[in-house]
Parts: sequence; C-alpha cells; structure tokens
Amino acid sequence: MSLLVVGSLALDTIETPFGKTKETLGGSAVYISTAASYFASPVRLVGVVGGDFPKSAITFLEERNIELEGLQTIQNGKTFRWSGKYHYDLNMRDTLFTQLNVFEKFDPKIPEVYRKSKYVCLGNIDPILQRKVLEQIEKPKLIIGDTMNFWIEGKRDELMKTMKHFDVLIINESEARLLTQEPNLIRAGKKVIGMGPKILIIKKGEHGALLITDSTIFSAPAYPMEDIYDPTGAGDTFAGGFIGWLEKSDDISDENLKKAVVYGSAMASFCVEKFGVDGLRELTYLKIQDRFRSFRDLVKF
Amino acid sequence: MSLLVVGSLALDTIETPFGKTKETLGGSAVYISTAASYFASPVRLVGVVGGDFPKSAITFLEERNIELEGLQTIQNGKTFRWSGKYHYDLNMRDTLFTQLNVFEKFDPKIPEVYRKSKYVCLGNIDPILQRKVLEQIEKPKLIIGDTMNFWIEGKRDELMKTMKHFDVLIINESEARLLTQEPNLIRAGKKVIGMGPKILIIKKGEHGALLITDSTIFSAPAYPMEDIYDPTGAGDTFAGGFIGWLEKSDDISDENLKKAVVYGSAMASFCVEKFGVDGLRELTYLKIQDRFRSFRDLVKF
Repeated sequence: MSLLVVGSLALDTIETPFGKTKETLGGSAVYISTAASYFASPVRLVGVVGGDFPKSAITFLEERNIELEGLQTIQNGKTFRWSGKYHYDLNMRDTLFTQLNVFEKFDPKIPEVYRKSKYVCLGNIDPILQRKVLEQIEKPKLIIGDTMNFWIEGKRDELMKTMKHFDVLIINESEARLLTQEPNLIRAGKKVIGMGPKILIIKKGEHGALLITDSTIFSAPAYPMEDIYDPTGAGDTFAGGFIGWLEKSDDISDENLKKAVVYGSAMASFCVEKFGVDGLRELTYLKIQDRFRSFRDLVKF
Repeated sequence: MSLLVVGSLALDTIETPFGKTKETLGGSAVYISTAASYFASPVRLVGVVGGDFPKSAITFLEERNIELEGLQTIQNGKTFRWSGKYHYDLNMRDTLFTQLNVFEKFDPKIPEVYRKSKYVCLGNIDPILQRKVLEQIEKPKLIIGDTMNFWIEGKRDELMKTMKHFDVLIINESEARLLTQEPNLIRAGKKVIGMGPKILIIKKGEHGALLITDSTIFSAPAYPMEDIYDPTGAGDTFAGGFIGWLEKSDDISDENLKKAVVYGSAMASFCVEKFGVDGLRELTYLKIQDRFRSFRDLVKF
C-alpha cells in the first residue's frame, strides 16, 4: 500500500513555559509523515524547502523511511519559518512571526510513481493547492484533508470546492464552529457531513476527539497528561497516526475508523511530551500499543 | 439506606434561544433530589421556601417520593428567584437577576431522623452553611459537596475548611482551574485531591466528565445532543444521578464510581432536553438504562 502526504516543512522557534527551542524541524507534512511512518509504508512526502534546510532534518526523515522524491529544494530560497509562544495555559498561544519564504510559491508536483497512492493526506495548506494535488492523482481509496481558520475565513468558497473531494475532514473544535456557524458540535458535525466529507473528526485537545459519520458517533478521550511540554504539531501528528493506521490496516469501516482515532490520539499524546518532533523520535510499536490500550482503560466502565 | 440533600429551592425564569419559562421550579436541592429519586430511597430534602412556593411544586416533589420534613416554609417570605438568559451558544449565559429572599437567611436544620443518613449531598451553598449541616449529622458513609466560583473567590478560606470534610467534590472545569490556579486539568485534579476530597469529579459540559481518585482516572463522554433546550440544572442533576446510583448500589469502589459518573451524565442529558425539571418528570428506569448503555456504545472501540 502507500500513503502520500502533502504539506509544509518548517523551522519552528517555540517558547513554552517549560523551555525554548530555535529553528527546530516542524511543519504539517513533517509531523504527519513522521507519525504515519510508525504504521504505513511507504510514506511519500511532497513539500518544499530552501537551501538552508538542515541535513540533519533530511537524515531524520530518511531514517523514518519517508520517501523524499517529491521534496523540492529551492537552493537560493529560505525554508518556511514559524515562531510561537505558549502561555502558562497551553491552550493559548501567540504567533510571534510567520515567514513563508519558499512556501509562498509552493507548487506541489506529484512524482509519477506517487500518483497511484492509495491513501492521501493533505496537510493544512491553501485549498487551491490541495485541489491542485488532487488533480494530479488517480482515484485514491481515501483522501484526508485538514484546514484552518485562516482558510475558512479567507478562502471559504475555494475551501468548499476542495472539501467536496475530501473523504475525511480533520479540524478542531473552533474550526468546526467557524465553518458551520453552529455552536453545537454535533449539529456542526452533521452540517460538515453535508458539505462533502463522509467522515469528520473534530479534535478537542485536552477533551479528546469526536468521530462523526452518517452511521456513527464515537467519542475518544484525551490521554491524561500532567506534563505537556509543547503542543506544536499535535493536530498533524493526530492526522498522521490516524491515516497511518488506516493505511496499515487498509480498512475504512466505522469500527476501524474508531481505532484509527485512538491511534491518532495516542501519537499526539507522545508528540506533546517533548519539544518539536522529539516525542516522535524513539517510539516503538510496543509503546504505541501500550498507550492504545491505556485509552481503553480510561473509558472502561 | 438513605440520602440527605441540602441546597436551594428556587423559582427560575429562563430564556434560551428555544423558548422562555417563568417562575418554574428549580434550585440545586430540587434537581439533585429529583434525579436521585430515580435510584435512591428515601431521598430527604432540606431547604427553605417562602409562602409563595407553589402547591404544584410540593406535589411534584412528593410524587417523586422526596421526603419534605426538612423543608422550612417562611410564610411571610418569598422563595428564592433566579433568572438567566442563554445565548445561541448555550455555553454562555447572562444572569438577569438573583433574588435570594428567604434563602438569604437560610439556616439548615436537620431533622432528628435525618441525622443518620448514610449518603449526604451538599448542593452549592455557602461553605459555612455546608459545615453547619455536617455538624448536625452522624458519620455518613459518603459526603458529596458542590461549590462555585462565587465561593471560591469570595470565601476561599471557609471553603478550604469545609472541603476537608468532603469525600467527593463535584465542580466544573473552570471552577477546578480557579480553585487550584492550575490550567492543566489533570494537575488541577491532583491538587484538589490534596485539599481533602479523595474523589473529584470535573464536569466538562459538552465534553463529558472526568473522575479522578488516588488510584484511577476515568473519562466519561458527553451524550451527543443536537437539541439542548435548557442547560439549567444539568450540573445538579449530574450530582443527583451520581449519588443516587451510589446510594442504590451502596458501593463506593472505583469501578462503581465510574458507573455512577455515567448515571449522572445520563440524567443530565435527560435534564437538558426540556425546560427546567420537565426533562426529569417522566423518566423510567428502563429509559435510564437504555441511555446508560448508549454511553458505552459511544466510547467502544
């Protein structure tokens, strides 16, 4: 089987109450691919970086068996940079700066061999670019898309067009409300199902996640964490774990979608335990299985 | 066995986007007792009303087999009144007025026969009054207490003294954060356990509830509701279902506490389906069991 991931690669400068990190590897495609790489194979990454993208980052991705044939390098350009500062309440963050750099003119080109990928995950990029990717690929089994407030508010019409092609939409709570203008999350979910995607996942951070399809509603708990060092990338890591599990099991039944939500949640819980992608560096399948089981214990009654 | 409930009885004037109701029966003791009456027997209510308290309200409570020997009636006084308006987003509400009336000088007197009650539920009243109740009773098996922002901010020292006597504290998310000055809910929970109660329940509204003890963490989902007519009393109804189940089963093991949390959640979900106490008027044990099971389906993977 195969999983195609398209999104950003970034150098993130992050400050949380527990520490700082400068120009560490980040970006939606990085988090998604890395999380997915614990399940799926091959994982094929399409994105763009500048000539300054560190060799160590390439090595990291290669060691995770992530295929980089679709990674464009603009030698005389600079890699996308983002900086954020989290408050003591980690649900609040300020963006200190966003330097799009080479990402501003990102024009995703899907290598020939990637066009038949069975699973496709579109990170949170311009909905026009997301559609451009979809135009280049041949009938995948499942298309997962992410989006954010910026596109919901700024490019709603384009997003609505793109969303019609998504099988799965993964958004967070406030995005679901913004997209549907509906404060009740269950109603919001049903409205989204009417917009195109047949499967919706609403990420609720410390409150877990909801899976909503035409035939089921599933409530996944959040892993109880006392020490969250850095929430950056948790949402993308969730998406990576989710689609990684689906690719591995090649089963998109409601029952298996629920498991995928829990694998996504498990991967996100590892992600936030350390800075940047560090929480995803040295996982084992055994550790992941252990955490998966602890989600079951958490809701058992 | 026996359950003693102490709290307010009120006449509520409520406006939600779905309708209005004027001077309808409400108050913490009413919601707690009514929800508990589907499980526990006898339920003994202690509170105060004015001469204007409607006969129909008395009849309602009597029909639910709630014992009213401890209900004081101040003939020349008026019943506590509260009025609130909910926004389109039902998580937001404005209090339009609060008229304490006879509740201002409430001096709980526990009838002789109630003093040996095995289970005690203290609704959200002044922590000094809560302690006054506890001074009048003999070693109950379990004391559950509720509180709110108003006491956490205004009478913190008194609350801390009272909390030392609680076995279970039931509060909502924002109250847990306010009480502990800790944004992380799991840390907040552990801090509360250090303050006295050995069992903490954090109500999270549309996100369900958390049970935290020294030995376990349990995450209960919220029942997915598209139509919430009136959130008033949901928290008290939760407490009533919770302690009602514990009284009925007379088992305070971790495993049974989890079930009690789900019964509390189930009762709260019925409560918000109609205005005031209407959602709790015509339930059957069968309906409650059905909903209990649907909570299980919601988290099964």
